[in-house]
Amino acid sequence: MSIENITGRIAKDLETLKQFTATPGDGCTRLPFTKEARDAVNYLAKIMAEAGLEVHEDAAGNVIGVLRGENQELPCIMMGSHFDSVVNGGDFDGIAGAVCAIEAARQLKDAGFVPKRNFVVVGFMDEEGLRFGTGYFGSGAMMGTRDVEYCKHYKDNSGVSIYDAMVSYGLDPEKIEEAKWEDGSIAKFLELHIEQGPVLDAENMEVGLVDCIVGIQRYMVTVNGRADHAGTTPMDMRYDAVDAATKVVSKIADWAREKADGTVATTGLIKTTPGGMNIVCEKCEFTVDIRSKNNDNINDIANRIRAALDKEVAAMGGSYEIDTKLVITPVFMDKEMLDIMEEDCKEKGYNYKILPSGAGHDALEIGQKIPVSMIFTPSKEGRSHCPVEFTKYSDFAKASVIMTGLAKKLLSE
Amino acid sequence: MSIENITGRIAKDLETLKQFTATPGDGCTRLPFTKEARDAVNYLAKIMAEAGLEVHEDAAGNVIGVLRGENQELPCIMMGSHFDSVVNGGDFDGIAGAVCAIEAARQLKDAGFVPKRNFVVVGFMDEEGLRFGTGYFGSGAMMGTRDVEYCKHYKDNSGVSIYDAMVSYGLDPEKIEEAKWEDGSIAKFLELHIEQGPVLDAENMEVGLVDCIVGIQRYMVTVNGRADHAGTTPMDMRYDAVDAATKVVSKIADWAREKADGTVATTGLIKTTPGGMNIVCEKCEFTVDIRSKNNDNINDIANRIRAALDKEVAAMGGSYEIDTKLVITPVFMDKEMLDIMEEDCKEKGYNYKILPSGAGHDALEIGQKIPVSMIFTPSKEGRSHCPVEFTKYSDFAKASVIMTGLAKKLLSE
Repeated sequence: MSIENITGRIAKDLETLKQFTATPGDGCTRLPFTKEARDAVNYLAKIMAEAGLEVHEDAAGNVIGVLRGENQELPCIMMGSHFDSVVNGGDFDGIAGAVCAIEAARQLKDAGFVPKRNFVVVGFMDEEGLRFGTGYFGSGAMMGTRDVEYCKHYKDNSGVSIYDAMVSYGLDPEKIEEAKWEDGSIAKFLELHIEQGPVLDAENMEVGLVDCIVGIQRYMVTVNGRADHAGTTPMDMRYDAVDAATKVVSKIADWAREKADGTVATTGLIKTTPGGMNIVCEKCEFTVDIRSKNNDNINDIANRIRAALDKEVAAMGGSYEIDTKLVITPVFMDKEMLDIMEEDCKEKGYNYKILPSGAGHDALEIGQKIPVSMIFTPSKEGRSHCPVEFTKYSDFAKASVIMTGLAKKLLSE
Repeated sequence: MSIENITGRIAKDLETLKQFTATPGDGCTRLPFTKEARDAVNYLAKIMAEAGLEVHEDAAGNVIGVLRGENQELPCIMMGSHFDSVVNGGDFDGIAGAVCAIEAARQLKDAGFVPKRNFVVVGFMDEEGLRFGTGYFGSGAMMGTRDVEYCKHYKDNSGVSIYDAMVSYGLDPEKIEEAKWEDGSIAKFLELHIEQGPVLDAENMEVGLVDCIVGIQRYMVTVNGRADHAGTTPMDMRYDAVDAATKVVSKIADWAREKADGTVATTGLIKTTPGGMNIVCEKCEFTVDIRSKNNDNINDIANRIRAALDKEVAAMGGSYEIDTKLVITPVFMDKEMLDIMEEDCKEKGYNYKILPSGAGHDALEIGQKIPVSMIFTPSKEGRSHCPVEFTKYSDFAKASVIMTGLAKKLLSE
């Protein structure tokens, strides 16, 4: 099978799947437990079957295809990614990883390859978490970290719970724990995903091999001052929340730059209350998102932010609170899989780069228990979660060839 | 007339007038050209007539009472303030100045005083400008700076123009220019207003004598970066609008403090777009409000902001725009009136302080053409534009005594 033919097969699948959107003409909107999700699952199930896989949908709505190996006792090799999207997202985030895993199965079938152990291909339900303010639902259910209470607890903006949405979709949420895979039943997991960052594209790379998924800490900081008339209140009688908050925010990016090891830190939101042009700010809220493969660097920046808040807020005379939103330590990728893929890239002459993943993925959830690895494809100008998201089909094809090589190796043992 | 009796008369007026609000129980909401404004004007007209004044409403909706002097050829002495309020404002901002001007007329009448020239007491329409996004309407009309086009141009949130609102209120906006007073017809103008700042209250002063109304410059700054994934975009590949903007905002208050002459500078609003926790900020907007009695200090801070934006935005790699919202140079108060009032405060043993006004007032509009002065009463904890706004009635009484003394002096010449 030539790379051109593989490119063509992948292109056909992705061109078909991009039609399953709630916002035609304005990017991909494929929220979990919707008609668009159902249409995507039906298509994935169809091409899985055509690839010779045994197909079923699990209790979480994941679509699963199995290429039976000679020995059913051995833990399987699993590959896949999610099929849901954000609102007005791109046509590749997630779904390309499911398609390329199926493409690897097709290449195994083309080669008449007989695996020693099961090869399992998965399309995961609801990685993005946008609808219910959650995430990693399908992969989490496979790891046994989602239950009925969870499904009842989280609701979308219309007040529909995951539980109710599952029922409408045709699933029985009471059986969610049946989606769990037994400990020891999965040997290794690999996920292909678009980079969603600019590095591979800027350096003209064809393939990215992920060495780790970065750790993340997220905070919402609230600095409390006092609202006063901006004209009549002398500088030494004000409690200016903006003044104190910006004295901290203005340093955060510099602290990340100082690390010079890929550590990033971002304040994406600042909110001022009451927010009047002529009123000293009473409450200034800001977000902090720190990521690094070095967890010490994350902790150091978080500590510097706390120390700076202590200092500036004391000087201002107000108070502050920090609400911790997320703490995830870095997950390092399986060295064996990384080495196999790197060797294969060299052999095939593909331009590749080893890099961390700055975004979370289903592999992060699965990586809490099982050795995982990720392969990235370039994202044009780093754009993602928007309609202009773009990756060349030929880049997916090359990555699928690397995935097939990896699968052959791991399935021969 | 004892100070207790004067206090009682002012208290009765203000207690009556505070009922004319659209938000009973939640502060004063007396927007221009509404039923509440009409009720306030009717009451002011009634007590003006009781004080022996000839009362009329002008084409702008100002209510005017005249105590005839012996010589109608001489330019008059005018006192007053506005009767409108902000939404959920206090019971004293504006209206207390109209009441105390009428109280001065009452004291002249009590004393059987016969003025050489006309004494004119005014309640101004729409100083706050909240309804139509404008301000100084009544005083501006008296100065001849409001015309029919102006009335048609500005509209409230419901799309009602000043023109239409005037018609509903019973005025003829086509005659707005009849509200203009001839050049040379007003000799001097005095306005009593609550301080709206904390200085007099904090220093236990009873009276404030204003030496100048500060100059103001207001800007809306927009810093343009690029939206990127906060996890996947390396620090050296981002255009972070928050990083550049906060590096400027964090210095603005310090530059004002450095002047140490009452100069103030405030960023009351920061807005981030798209404002996602995990998205590098594409557009960071912020307001700047700089006030000082020294116009050079205002210009210096504005120039430092521009220079800092040049530097930080160049380092970031994006762009910025500055939208100038307001440029007003300081207006110095009439020295003769200030000296007369200071002398009288000393004589009566009132604790007084000479201070600038950080807020704009009708006196600012009138001061563009005519010698003006202002007298302040203490605002408890500096609160204003809110229901807890508070000044002791006895402080208004003391100020009214000073106003009466000033009027006697000026009306005897």
